[in-house]
Amino acid sequence: MAKKLIGSAIIGQSGGPTSVINASILGAIKKALEAEEITRVYGASNGIIGVLNDELYDLNLEDKNELELLRYTPASALGSCRHKLHDDDDYEYKRILEVFKKYNVRYFFYCGGNDSMDTCNKISKYCIKNGYECRVMGIPKTIDNDLYCTDHCPGFASAAKYIATSIMEISLDTRVYDYGNISIVEIMGRNAGWLAASAALSNINGMGADLIYLPEVPFDLEKFIDDVNDIYEAKGKVIVAVSEGIKDKDGKYISEYNNSKKEKDKFGHIQMGGLAQYLANAVKLRTGAKIRGIELSLLQRCAAHLASKTDYDEAYLAGKAAVENAIEGISDKMVAFKCSRGKNVSDYKCEIELIPLENVANYEKLVPQEWINKEGNNVTKDFINYVLPLIQGETELPKENGLPRFARLKKIIVK
Amino acid sequence: MAKKLIGSAIIGQSGGPTSVINASILGAIKKALEAEEITRVYGASNGIIGVLNDELYDLNLEDKNELELLRYTPASALGSCRHKLHDDDDYEYKRILEVFKKYNVRYFFYCGGNDSMDTCNKISKYCIKNGYECRVMGIPKTIDNDLYCTDHCPGFASAAKYIATSIMEISLDTRVYDYGNISIVEIMGRNAGWLAASAALSNINGMGADLIYLPEVPFDLEKFIDDVNDIYEAKGKVIVAVSEGIKDKDGKYISEYNNSKKEKDKFGHIQMGGLAQYLANAVKLRTGAKIRGIELSLLQRCAAHLASKTDYDEAYLAGKAAVENAIEGISDKMVAFKCSRGKNVSDYKCEIELIPLENVANYEKLVPQEWINKEGNNVTKDFINYVLPLIQGETELPKENGLPRFARLKKIIVK
Repeated sequence: MAKKLIGSAIIGQSGGPTSVINASILGAIKKALEAEEITRVYGASNGIIGVLNDELYDLNLEDKNELELLRYTPASALGSCRHKLHDDDDYEYKRILEVFKKYNVRYFFYCGGNDSMDTCNKISKYCIKNGYECRVMGIPKTIDNDLYCTDHCPGFASAAKYIATSIMEISLDTRVYDYGNISIVEIMGRNAGWLAASAALSNINGMGADLIYLPEVPFDLEKFIDDVNDIYEAKGKVIVAVSEGIKDKDGKYISEYNNSKKEKDKFGHIQMGGLAQYLANAVKLRTGAKIRGIELSLLQRCAAHLASKTDYDEAYLAGKAAVENAIEGISDKMVAFKCSRGKNVSDYKCEIELIPLENVANYEKLVPQEWINKEGNNVTKDFINYVLPLIQGETELPKENGLPRFARLKKIIVK
Repeated sequence: MAKKLIGSAIIGQSGGPTSVINASILGAIKKALEAEEITRVYGASNGIIGVLNDELYDLNLEDKNELELLRYTPASALGSCRHKLHDDDDYEYKRILEVFKKYNVRYFFYCGGNDSMDTCNKISKYCIKNGYECRVMGIPKTIDNDLYCTDHCPGFASAAKYIATSIMEISLDTRVYDYGNISIVEIMGRNAGWLAASAALSNINGMGADLIYLPEVPFDLEKFIDDVNDIYEAKGKVIVAVSEGIKDKDGKYISEYNNSKKEKDKFGHIQMGGLAQYLANAVKLRTGAKIRGIELSLLQRCAAHLASKTDYDEAYLAGKAAVENAIEGISDKMVAFKCSRGKNVSDYKCEIELIPLENVANYEKLVPQEWINKEGNNVTKDFINYVLPLIQGETELPKENGLPRFARLKKIIVK
């Protein structure tokens, strides 16, 4: 066993919100508060930005009951960021180390996606290079489910459950009239189509998406219109799920067909949106059908009222495991899931594994081609078998006045 | 007591879907199936269209357990329509009477909004004029809550609960980054702002909409941008709820500013949509802020997974009361709610009343001006007191595979 490392801990959140990212930090916070090695538990205000700005919350001062509500509270309770550390000089790394030293920070836990694991990895390397002992652990989080080396990511399953449930409800809604209609539902996912693929779950109970288009398959607008029209002529009602990140064979985003001046974020990712309406117009021109574009928008990633219990339980465990392992002497790892599935949903088992940060950072895991049908417009039974165990169980989110009772932290800044 | 009237019953649904319209017909179907006066229970396929086309489902053949699931199943299980009966000649009325006679229909229950109550009223008058005894009862339904003579309408509360919950979640989501942003959420409601007003519920538990714009207040784009900008400068984050039906002082829909070729439906109503994006662009031009338009779209009316228990219980009672009263000899009435509220939410009481159909048909109930603040950009505490009791209680929707288990009716057409 590694030597006991005594000092304080910083816990931070980064990247886009999910329904269960706060369950992960709850697991980390609770374990850190009870660990005798950890002298004080700080929350970074807006992730690494909070470290750079020396804006830390004293989590020891939070009410225990409010902390417990983090399990059911969506978005990032400590605040998030999309800050990419400057690599051309080490100014920011120096500053981080300065703040770590100021608070004797010996544990750094960072919950996020690809870019955040990269941040973790670089901070860890910098500390080692400068002879400062700090154990750095990544806690996975992303609705996109595109992190490498893990069966799946916390946050994905709750988004998948929201998408599948909503499409079932939309499907019933659009079937009430005696005339035909087509609905095109736009789903998040820049390069990986895991979320759009989850629309296939809506068909398990007999009502849902007819066609599914993922970024993993080059998108052909003419073929798409033919696909939609074939189902429209056969059944009169069509539900289509499309990933916001579908691209043509030349790699151009279809959402860009409509607008050449798309904004890019700080990581150079193009801002998506408006695709459903574009495709709806294209289909309408050809078929003349009544057609509606529906963007699930922010709700797919923050609708905690539909979170999967499996998801938030696993998210909690991932946060807890990060702290447990760091105390044991582990560093430079991301907590990952190794899962097995059997014939029945209940055969599902999930274990924690630890993956070197550099193996995770900046790789994107895509939906395997063998889980996509030959036509490139739906997913196979293997995908369903993969995702179905993850969406099991309902949230126990407490209600007040018939509405969610989300956590209200004091967030007292350390002076 | 009126004489016993022996014969069959037709139950139909009309207008837009809601989360609880099937709870209403379940109340009616169950009562009709057990009533000795009612010899057979038929469901009209797509409302009055099904009567005109002689397409009726034999509801006596349905599985009892599947019927029970109607309580939790959104949209219109029997199919709906937006058909306006032709008034220039009596061809359609003759046809309806012909079908009524063919099946010895002595009870007609129609679940819908303003236009449907008008349809009920006209059919009833035509039967009387032609000496055919048929008891006609309207069952209210509309998310818009714009029916006259009733405290509220089944369907409204579940939509309100969905809107408030979703805005709370969106609010948390938009607060995670350290930069400012503005979200504009577009909510259904053509002339009455009850649904957009319900966004105010999101503030009860401390997180939600900052500004609310209703069709009841003439909309001034410049004033709107000023309102948004004031909050943006003070707080950095703004959540705005707007009703799709907001109009300028000349009565022109703001959504038409963007598009002069809006389609009209069969009742002459203009098809709405795209407003959130239009307003987002207008605010962005002025403030330069990061801004997002979110359309809640179909989900606000069909998201049964967030239905209010109070709502579906009342919806069920309304359907049941329609049949009970018809058997007792009542006709030509709509079932309505008379409610009282006290200091606490639990003081709420709801009783059934019967309202003459002609008093209801074609009037629209708007949000009272005294429930709107002086600035015309929010609602008062009185509105909250009105709506809060209606959203209480959670759905008991059964799940299968972690997803809703909605009713699957056989819908066997009577030959």
